[in-house]
Order: sequence, then C-alpha cells, then structure tokens
Amino acid sequence: MIIPTLDDVVAAAGRLAGKAVRTPLLNVPVLDEQLGFRLFLKPENLQRTGSFKFRGAYNALSCIEEARRASGVVACSSGNHAQGVAEAARILSMKATIVMPSDAPAIKVERTRRSGADVVLYDRENEDRDAIANDICARDGATFVHPYDNPLVIAGQGTCGLEIAQDLELSGISPDHVLVCTGGGGLTAGVALAIHASFAGAAIHSCEPVGFDDYRRSLEVGRRLANAKASGSACDAILTPSPGEISFAINSALLGQGYAVSDAEAFHAMRIAFNEFKCVGEPGGSVALATALANGREFAGKTVVAILSGGNVDPDLFARVLGGTA
Amino acid sequence: MIIPTLDDVVAAAGRLAGKAVRTPLLNVPVLDEQLGFRLFLKPENLQRTGSFKFRGAYNALSCIEEARRASGVVACSSGNHAQGVAEAARILSMKATIVMPSDAPAIKVERTRRSGADVVLYDRENEDRDAIANDICARDGATFVHPYDNPLVIAGQGTCGLEIAQDLELSGISPDHVLVCTGGGGLTAGVALAIHASFAGAAIHSCEPVGFDDYRRSLEVGRRLANAKASGSACDAILTPSPGEISFAINSALLGQGYAVSDAEAFHAMRIAFNEFKCVGEPGGSVALATALANGREFAGKTVVAILSGGNVDPDLFARVLGGTA
Repeated sequence: MIIPTLDDVVAAAGRLAGKAVRTPLLNVPVLDEQLGFRLFLKPENLQRTGSFKFRGAYNALSCIEEARRASGVVACSSGNHAQGVAEAARILSMKATIVMPSDAPAIKVERTRRSGADVVLYDRENEDRDAIANDICARDGATFVHPYDNPLVIAGQGTCGLEIAQDLELSGISPDHVLVCTGGGGLTAGVALAIHASFAGAAIHSCEPVGFDDYRRSLEVGRRLANAKASGSACDAILTPSPGEISFAINSALLGQGYAVSDAEAFHAMRIAFNEFKCVGEPGGSVALATALANGREFAGKTVVAILSGGNVDPDLFARVLGGTA
Repeated sequence: MIIPTLDDVVAAAGRLAGKAVRTPLLNVPVLDEQLGFRLFLKPENLQRTGSFKFRGAYNALSCIEEARRASGVVACSSGNHAQGVAEAARILSMKATIVMPSDAPAIKVERTRRSGADVVLYDRENEDRDAIANDICARDGATFVHPYDNPLVIAGQGTCGLEIAQDLELSGISPDHVLVCTGGGGLTAGVALAIHASFAGAAIHSCEPVGFDDYRRSLEVGRRLANAKASGSACDAILTPSPGEISFAINSALLGQGYAVSDAEAFHAMRIAFNEFKCVGEPGGSVALATALANGREFAGKTVVAILSGGNVDPDLFARVLGGTA
C-alpha cells in the first residue's frame, strides 16, 4: 500500500495549475456574527465538472505513463467521479470508459457522455460493477482509476486543502476546525495532509450523513467498519460502504472526531449556501457546511473551514429545497 | 467632471486586496463545444454582499479623508449598492445611512441593516430620495456615494475587469468580446478601462433588459438618452433611468454596440449559470450571460467573457426560474 505524502499533494498542485479552477475561500462577516464563529467556505461546486473530483482524476490520469495512455482508463461511479475522470481524459486525449448503474440520474449519464466517455450501464441488483470494470481493463489494457483508494487521487484532492492553507496563511488566520464531506475519505485524507502540514493544531473532521457514518464509527474504534445500508439518504454523492484502505491509514492518524448530519440539516446548508454564499451545493456536498451550522455551540468563538464539495444537483430537487418541501 | 483612468483602477485594486473576493474566471469546455464559442464567466455573485457593488463602494469609502470619516456616508439604493456601501462602511468603522424605497424587498432591507447601516425608508410616489439624501448630508456632514457617477466607484468596479485581464493574460488568451451587465454604466466603464488597456482589440458591450436599453440607444446616437419606463422588468438591479455622465464619457469612447435581452432570456441564463457553473445569478446580474447565449451565431468561433454581476435573488423567484414558471 502506497501512502501519499504532502510532497505528492504539492506535485499534484503543479500538474493541476491552469487545469483546475483555483477556487476562492469565501467568508461572510455578518453571517459570522449571527453564528458566533468565523466560517470560511471553500466552494468546490465551482470546480470543473461541478465537484472536487476533477482534481484527483486529472492528477491520476496525467501520471499514467505514455505507453499505457492509448489503452485508456476505466472508472466505476454513478456521479461526480465519473464526470471528473471523463473530463480529465478528454483534456488528456485519452479514452475513458465509465461503468455506471442503469438507474443513475439521466443528467449525470448525459454529462459524463458529453465529456466524450463511453458509458457502460449495469444492473445494480444482478451485476457486479467491479467485475465489469476488471473485464474491460483486462480486454483493453486500460488503467483502472479508483474513486478514493488511489494515492494519486488522494494527492490530487489534497490540492483543495493546499489552497485553503495558502489563503489562510496569506490572511494570517489559523483554522481551529476543518470540516470535510466524507464518502470513501479521499478528499478528507488529501485535505488532512495539506492542512496538517501548515496548521498542526487544527482539528480536521469527517462529515457524513446520519446512517452512513462509517468513517465516524471507524475512527472511534480504530478499524474500518461498514454501513448497514447502501441507500436511503439524499446525500447520494457520499454513500460509500466503508472507509478506503489508504484513506483510512491517513485519516486515522490525522483526524479528530467525525460528525454526522441529517438530510434536513444538509438541505438547510444548501439554503445557506444559496442565500449567503450564492453557491449551488448538492446534498452530499453540503454536509460539511451542515455540520458547521448544526454545531454552533461547539464551534463558538472558533475559526471553522467547511468544504462545499460539489454542486451537481437536479434543478427540481434544488427548487424543492429552496421552497422547504424537499 | 473627473474621469478615472487605468491608474485609478490599479490603485483601487491595491486598496481592495484582501478585502474583496478575488473571484475566479470559470469555463466549461464541453459547454463551449455546444455553444460554438469559448465562454468565460466572471462570477461576481461570489463577491462580498453578493454583487460587484462592494468593489466600488469600498474603494470610494476608503478614500474619504480621515477628518470626514466620522460624519459617515449616505447612499440611495434599493438593493446591491445599498449592501455594498453598508458592508464597506462596517469594515471601515464608518456610519452608513441608506435611503431605500419603502417597497424594497424586505430581504434587501434586512441584509442592509445587518451590515449595521441606518435605513431611511421613503415613499417612491410622494418623496424625493435625492432630497432626503441631501438633507442628511447637509445635517451630518456625511459624504454622498453615488452608485455609478463617481470616479472612485467606477475605478473600484474596474478591478473586476483587471482580474479578468490578468487571468486571461496568464492563460495566453485574448478575448474577442466582453459582455457587461449595464445599469448606470459604472461597472461597464471600469471594466472597459481595464480590458481596453490589456486587449485593445476586444469589443466591450453593454447588456441591458429590453425596454431599458438606454445605454444601447445612447451609444448609437452619441448622447445620453433616457428610458420611457422606470419599472416593468424582472432585472430590478439594472433599471436605471439613463447613462451616468462620467460612465458615458468613458463608455462612449471605449464600447462597441449594446445589446438588450428579454426577461425570459435572463431566466434561461440563470438556469445555465445553475446547471453549468453552479452559481446563483439574479435576473439583472444574468443579462450579460443571456446576451452571450442569445447571440451564438454572432459570437461563433470567438472568445467571449460575460460577467455574472450579482446573485441577490429571492429563493421563491429562483425556484420558479428553475421550474420554468417564472
């Protein structure tokens, strides 16, 4: 198992320069006064393909050796990783094949195809997506790109944390808490590497949906636990079964306690992102902001950074969230 | 009449460093392929107070001499300039009094008050807001901050154009067209100063709502014309009666033709900003993007920059725009 380090994150930042969006760090001082703590938002909804996933995908794909590039890449994803890999492959003129469940939202399938990827649909109930992906890799000699248990993917996601650290250092501000939306833990691990290097005193936290808090529970006992359910939350982007092996090796060393929030709290965070930060957040991408908003007493007087990790949300759902009927 | 120059814009950028959000320049390559031209979006919805207005307000207020600061500032506005001035005054520990119409949206009055400003409400039908503002200035010795016909305000708005020029130069890209949402023309003039200095060959265009295209018509005849109506568009942020005197002196020298779009086209642009750029745009702030989308044939093969100038929109209206029922 190769564990990425800060050096890998810095190298990834070099590869991503001019390719990924350098997202700003947003702050609304009058909101801070209402909340009782200082809140910075990192809007990765503005990232290419609408989520942070482009960072890791581009870093991983750009490290594939020349001889193997023509054989293309394969990824399994129902959403944001699919789009990230497809777009990175398009930029690097590589063929991408994405294995997506046949019940994936049509808009996500369409957006993945739009980037030029071949989409292979499978039946969630009766087919094994990993077997399908393995078959394609074996047949074509393609490179499999795991959504989080890949050191280059983790290093790429870490560039988000590097930007946060740079912006805070420039302003002379030290964060007390950094909140990260956590599925398999790749973004969390990459951000932890970057933040820990600059701010060893900052507590970094995994943020998950209630009922899918495998990371929170795994951190408590020190080994990887699984979720009982595979679906049943609006936060579709981060419903992974259990922590990744590599990500957990990093996160178990660097993270503080984990948090879990309800769908209703995620929806409230989406409304705050809309009203205060003028950003579009998807439910799963809003759980870190939701964690900040739901734990105001605990964070009182502190400086808190929350990553809005994605904004790929259906307009109908977004309208219902704004109207309070979601 | 003092006409600001590029030097004033550069000086404003120095004052705004670390105070205003350095907004990124967004691009969606696969959208470009669909459109047939290259489109960059400058998301000023992410700016402090949710619109570019903070730039000009902060620049103007920070130039008020020490001896006059204690007497405070006065502004007339029903929306974005109000919030920009109020927030700039809060940061600079100055008193702000904002004269707002009694029928202004409650949320805009509340957001202005939240920044610590005194709000003086007036009756649009029976009272003269300029007279009220003048009275306050005479009584308190306060400084009046015009929303666009003020050289420091124009220079501050120009920092948005300076950032666009810097980002494009860094990428080695020359814009063919720069589209700016135009009310009184302050943002347009400031952006024109900055863009013209770096890209003399770029055509800079005013973008207005149909029926409120005073700038488009004024540019055609070379003198300032007024609109027939004062209301009747969803683009409330940019329904000014006629071009500003200072802004027109700059714009008539530097601008190409003007454009006008319908409310329906502005709403379509809001949906594109949501789906493709994950940004919240208000109707008036979306007319530049709407102009790009509505004139695809004219812009074919070109590089186009559109400024999304603000995102202060009511959630109910936004939900209706997403649902196609606005």
